[in-house]
Amino acid sequence: MRTFVAPLLLLAMTDVGAADSPAPAPIAIAIHGGAGTLSRERIDAALEAEIRAALDAALDAGHGVLARGGPALDAVEAAVRVLEDSPHFNAGKGAVFTAEGRNELDAAIMEGHTRRAGSIAGVRALRNPVSAARAVMERSRHVMLVGEGAEAFAREQGLAFAEPDYFRTEQRWQQLLEARQREAEAKAPRASSYFGTVGAVALDRQGHVAAATSTGGMTNKRWGRVGDAPIIGAGTWADAQCAVSATGWGEFFIRLAVAHDICARVAYAGTPLAAAADDVVLRRVPDLGGDGGVIAIDARGNLALPFNTSGMYRGWIAVDGTRGTAIFRADE
Amino acid sequence: MRTFVAPLLLLAMTDVGAADSPAPAPIAIAIHGGAGTLSRERIDAALEAEIRAALDAALDAGHGVLARGGPALDAVEAAVRVLEDSPHFNAGKGAVFTAEGRNELDAAIMEGHTRRAGSIAGVRALRNPVSAARAVMERSRHVMLVGEGAEAFAREQGLAFAEPDYFRTEQRWQQLLEARQREAEAKAPRASSYFGTVGAVALDRQGHVAAATSTGGMTNKRWGRVGDAPIIGAGTWADAQCAVSATGWGEFFIRLAVAHDICARVAYAGTPLAAAADDVVLRRVPDLGGDGGVIAIDARGNLALPFNTSGMYRGWIAVDGTRGTAIFRADE
Repeated sequence: MRTFVAPLLLLAMTDVGAADSPAPAPIAIAIHGGAGTLSRERIDAALEAEIRAALDAALDAGHGVLARGGPALDAVEAAVRVLEDSPHFNAGKGAVFTAEGRNELDAAIMEGHTRRAGSIAGVRALRNPVSAARAVMERSRHVMLVGEGAEAFAREQGLAFAEPDYFRTEQRWQQLLEARQREAEAKAPRASSYFGTVGAVALDRQGHVAAATSTGGMTNKRWGRVGDAPIIGAGTWADAQCAVSATGWGEFFIRLAVAHDICARVAYAGTPLAAAADDVVLRRVPDLGGDGGVIAIDARGNLALPFNTSGMYRGWIAVDGTRGTAIFRADE
Repeated sequence: MRTFVAPLLLLAMTDVGAADSPAPAPIAIAIHGGAGTLSRERIDAALEAEIRAALDAALDAGHGVLARGGPALDAVEAAVRVLEDSPHFNAGKGAVFTAEGRNELDAAIMEGHTRRAGSIAGVRALRNPVSAARAVMERSRHVMLVGEGAEAFAREQGLAFAEPDYFRTEQRWQQLLEARQREAEAKAPRASSYFGTVGAVALDRQGHVAAATSTGGMTNKRWGRVGDAPIIGAGTWADAQCAVSATGWGEFFIRLAVAHDICARVAYAGTPLAAAADDVVLRRVPDLGGDGGVIAIDARGNLALPFNTSGMYRGWIAVDGTRGTAIFRADE
């Protein structure tokens, strides 16, 4: 599924007063676990089942919040925490390694109707970076904190830390060794080394949307590089009508302000959500030389999940309750 | 001057072919040295003369590049370097102090027609942060580098470093002492502690625009706080038609993606530059509780310099060659 146009809601809007007991306000959620050059050969049936189970668990966590009438902000945080806790995605546990063999984690969260936002970058030991981003939003006067300062803040706030071993997975370590080998041979890094992010967007019964994104960044990264995930407007954005979480080659997503640009096209050009997301992800990003994907939602529950790579780990529960998970393009 | 609509260019465009030797393509530049609750009592005639001289020197540096046919990218870097070197503005020399009594500098630069961008945040010893941001753009695969990693990159690139004493000014040190005192007395920080940024936007003879911003951040800041200046899309943005550099209470500028939002209104709603800048700076920012200003330029050389505070250090040279500097609102 790439796009879902909410038919029930449109019916409900044109049929106001026709029903004796009005349907509850719509809720919907979409999640991603990263886009990239995924290969069927490297994902066997057992691994695929594990990945889909993690995606389903994240959907259940987020949608459960919405179904109980909870805010979209809580839903995206809950969904992203499940993905951070899974070793299969490059965020929290399972994060990739920097050139120094460490993990550096970035995350952001934003609530649309209040425009509140929080973001952290370059933290090393936080178990759930998305919750640290939320703490920045709710318990500081700031939006973005980075590095040791961000960790000091998180410690003051009593957030859960983890030992370096917690984040380590053998697959990510091997990716670092391979990246170092390619560098030693003066080969360009694999495009896939840029990828891997998790995120969620949601619509709650109050008609509010929110977005959250979390990542371990780029394999073999150095110099304190920050990608798009923690940049409000690039990898993460929410306003009153529209919310987006992105995954891809972060530099291109920053240079195009991807998440804000999609919502600006909806707001100012009146472009439907799916067309706006397609314009940016399928045309503007590749025109500049980048790749990746986004998940997007609007305040009517329309969903869009475009990507220009061979695959994107993704899942959704639409306003009519239909749900799914997918990895490759043909899975839809 | 808040807005300048380019009459000569419009004439030139409607009169194509009427002149024997066509006028050279238009060039223009605008700069700012920060917005805030500036008070006439605290700026005597001698200080005002020094500030205006620094603004004029920055205009000359940037406009000189443009007049020689140089790129807007070079012009905004040259202008911002002059402002960084002046002790009167909160960027480079004259930067404010963090809670630990240090300086932490942020900067960003972006070229519109290529969408190339570079940014650094949380560096302590770089003499001209804007040139480090440009080095990130041109000599790394990345857009944003932070903290010690960013300094390591700058060192590898041979950029000029300075001792802590270089940045220190007595005025900024007293501001820190006052901020600490207010904190000890549980008073809210002065709004003015959030302010102070320098920036430039320019249009070159090739019709290309660029933007750059540099700041010492917030007095008494902690936890590795990053404001809007180094966030592409928030404090700094350039696309093919429009470039913006912002100054103000950074958190609000991030939450509104101010710089990108102004250009998106121009691109997608067809709003004239001045109206778009006014919409965002005079309505959206104060509606959310923030304040500050921007300088904006479009590819026809229209300029807009709106601010919602009592003053903004600013200067401009328009397409018709008229120039000016101003501090307070009544100076226009």
